[in-house]
Amino acid sequence: MGQAEQGGGSRERSAETAAPGWAADMLPVEEALARILELVEEMPAVRRSLREAAGQVLAEDIVAPFDIPPHDNTAMDGYAVRSADTEGAAAESPVGLRVIGELAAGYLYAGSVGAGEAVRIMTGAPMPDGADAIVPFEETDESGLRAPGQAHAAHAAVQVLQGARLGANIRRRGEDVRQGATILTRGLLLRGAEIAVLASMGIAEVLVVRRPRVAILSTGDELLAPGDVPPGEGLPPGKIFDSNSYGLAALVEEYGGEPAPAGIARDTVEALTAKIHAAVGPLEAGGADMVVTSAGVSRGDFDVVKEVLAREGAVRFWTVRMKPGKPLAFGHFRSGDGRRVPHIGLPGNPVSSLLAFELFGRPALLKMQGRVVQSRPMITAVADEAIVNTDGRRVYARAIVSREDDGRWHARLTGPQGSGVLTSMAYANGYAVCPAERDRVSVGEEVEVLMVDWEQPED
Amino acid sequence: MGQAEQGGGSRERSAETAAPGWAADMLPVEEALARILELVEEMPAVRRSLREAAGQVLAEDIVAPFDIPPHDNTAMDGYAVRSADTEGAAAESPVGLRVIGELAAGYLYAGSVGAGEAVRIMTGAPMPDGADAIVPFEETDESGLRAPGQAHAAHAAVQVLQGARLGANIRRRGEDVRQGATILTRGLLLRGAEIAVLASMGIAEVLVVRRPRVAILSTGDELLAPGDVPPGEGLPPGKIFDSNSYGLAALVEEYGGEPAPAGIARDTVEALTAKIHAAVGPLEAGGADMVVTSAGVSRGDFDVVKEVLAREGAVRFWTVRMKPGKPLAFGHFRSGDGRRVPHIGLPGNPVSSLLAFELFGRPALLKMQGRVVQSRPMITAVADEAIVNTDGRRVYARAIVSREDDGRWHARLTGPQGSGVLTSMAYANGYAVCPAERDRVSVGEEVEVLMVDWEQPED
Repeated sequence: MGQAEQGGGSRERSAETAAPGWAADMLPVEEALARILELVEEMPAVRRSLREAAGQVLAEDIVAPFDIPPHDNTAMDGYAVRSADTEGAAAESPVGLRVIGELAAGYLYAGSVGAGEAVRIMTGAPMPDGADAIVPFEETDESGLRAPGQAHAAHAAVQVLQGARLGANIRRRGEDVRQGATILTRGLLLRGAEIAVLASMGIAEVLVVRRPRVAILSTGDELLAPGDVPPGEGLPPGKIFDSNSYGLAALVEEYGGEPAPAGIARDTVEALTAKIHAAVGPLEAGGADMVVTSAGVSRGDFDVVKEVLAREGAVRFWTVRMKPGKPLAFGHFRSGDGRRVPHIGLPGNPVSSLLAFELFGRPALLKMQGRVVQSRPMITAVADEAIVNTDGRRVYARAIVSREDDGRWHARLTGPQGSGVLTSMAYANGYAVCPAERDRVSVGEEVEVLMVDWEQPED
Repeated sequence: MGQAEQGGGSRERSAETAAPGWAADMLPVEEALARILELVEEMPAVRRSLREAAGQVLAEDIVAPFDIPPHDNTAMDGYAVRSADTEGAAAESPVGLRVIGELAAGYLYAGSVGAGEAVRIMTGAPMPDGADAIVPFEETDESGLRAPGQAHAAHAAVQVLQGARLGANIRRRGEDVRQGATILTRGLLLRGAEIAVLASMGIAEVLVVRRPRVAILSTGDELLAPGDVPPGEGLPPGKIFDSNSYGLAALVEEYGGEPAPAGIARDTVEALTAKIHAAVGPLEAGGADMVVTSAGVSRGDFDVVKEVLAREGAVRFWTVRMKPGKPLAFGHFRSGDGRRVPHIGLPGNPVSSLLAFELFGRPALLKMQGRVVQSRPMITAVADEAIVNTDGRRVYARAIVSREDDGRWHARLTGPQGSGVLTSMAYANGYAVCPAERDRVSVGEEVEVLMVDWEQPED
């Protein structure tokens, strides 16, 4: 039932007793995740402009439409010359060449470089006809010329102080990328560099995997929405504020989905059924690609949620060997337009709910986006506080990890770990893991930490 | 000038020779960053709904408006009783209590629990008057009751099989959070957990640090925008596509800013001046909080960019001891409404430009957002390829880091490291660093890698 539910409460214990579609045994976290990933599918591809495509996954292979560089061009500022003319040139025996023109990047030299001639040229500019080498400014003496940037008299000459070999300082056409080569492959996450590569190829639109729209629904008669109560006024007795749908919306967004808040469903068959039907409407009508509910997935006399989920979709109710958390529902609904919409039913308790979404919702969203499903980085830290495991579940302790003077990572816990203590999540940048088979991690022992945020203050 | 420019080209070498406001010496990366951070300021605070606030930084301390839990409530499903009544209760000598009602979370029990009475109660429900302990279902025998969930005859009794001490299984009001306590502090990044905490307090709007709007301007006569050339048609001679403004926009967004593409400025004083004036217009008119330009910051005959930047704002031109990259401009413009708008002038070369923005633009954006300015995680990896340092600058080699069978991180380079090779950025998940004072990192040696992306394919 509600978000006040205690992670360790009897509801979770009783969750192991028989119930519709109930798994009697506790599932390891990895097994539950594997079952979920098995059933979620990649979203269809859509065409997007480069601006919209950033942060999404490429759904097509990209082939270079032309060579890069597209033409032979100069790799340095200097003079385009015929290398033969510069043979034997040296500081003590310079070779004078007539400067017949000046060329900036972006422009083409109309004429051709003949014997004894040179064109002053800027990095990136195409090689003029006739020239076969670039002499950099450093190897010339321009004192015979007027001030740089001004026009040059026909008779103006530059002194070449060093011989240039054939092809010196020329970037050859196709040197970086050959026309027709596959430069970006399907499945690549498009970030700054990838977007830049596409732009450099003149590609303005690409196929990307569509972002999943995620309906987020909280259930419970005790829930009020923030703002339902005027500031200053207390909570009506027995009521609490819905925090899950707000926290989960932020996570859905962070993980690349589009949150579609579906509000609060009361604990009645009618209310919940209506909310679910609304959430999984036709795609054009904003129907969701995934539904995330919280509360009502563990056994309890007043939980109508399980009944509705079981009837509206093929939903399994699991107990996962983790703490906080444990009760978890997973399955799918049929959408208005016949789509199979995966459903994740999270515990009502906010701490359990956010952790479960991190462990199961995030990978599911990554897979739906065609992203590489990769767990967060795990680092080994020194436990500065003990983590106690009372009942053989894997414990995820909210921790602040920081590098200490000894050069090692250290993990402190963020206050009381009771699953009711939501504030303990706020300052954590990782979860310190006590394995299910161990009854404690003692102070000073090494502990594996699942890092969920590298950018939180280090202390 | 622009994006075909070569990182190692003479333009950069000549950059060290005299030019308006030129720093003769090369700045270490850290020094350049320190100077930039010194001059960028945190954005003003704005009020945002929880949905909009996600991913931004809290600009106020948040004080708990009420206790959490707001009332004494049950931590388990069971029976609310008077502990005295259950004294001595045991499996062989159960104590029968009259069930006078049933209570779900979200509801208040109107009456009071008298001697010999009990209220069936669900986790999270407020304690009924008179009751001072909870007996969990597990410690009762309900066989005397009708089926759970149905109303109970007045005479229905539950058998208590174990004595409950005073206060057993009760979550006390204020146990998690005391009214008036500061629960979230100014400067905290609002992610899922923090948003959930705010919601749980009934707070619907908060003050956050405004996202900076970043004008992105490319300069160069040789630049075309993707889409300017119909697909299939080749590039006009000497022209290339603007990739920087697209890649940089993606990075600005990834780093929490709002990209405001300002297009391409031609290499004329008039064109560039007009673009800059447009970019730094009044705030209401969409004026930027920061301006990022690319190209034209290193010395070159055709660079009007430096002149305009120097005149329009207080801009310094630096050479930074890094490769790729090196030329960098930093300063500020005066906006139409008199705001001091920081400006970062990046190299034109796309690889240099993206790396320089990662090293200097990202931290600047973080500081403007009130974020903790923290470098990306550095990890130590085994160099599977050598990194050569030819000219005493710190080399950032585009690398793919993956954990190999030996359990260690290994760094492979992503193809040729020439700063013209933009595609080499696409598959990198980090930059392997060869220190300025070393001339190479050899195969098998340990190398520090700046990780920019943990989620790229591991191979």
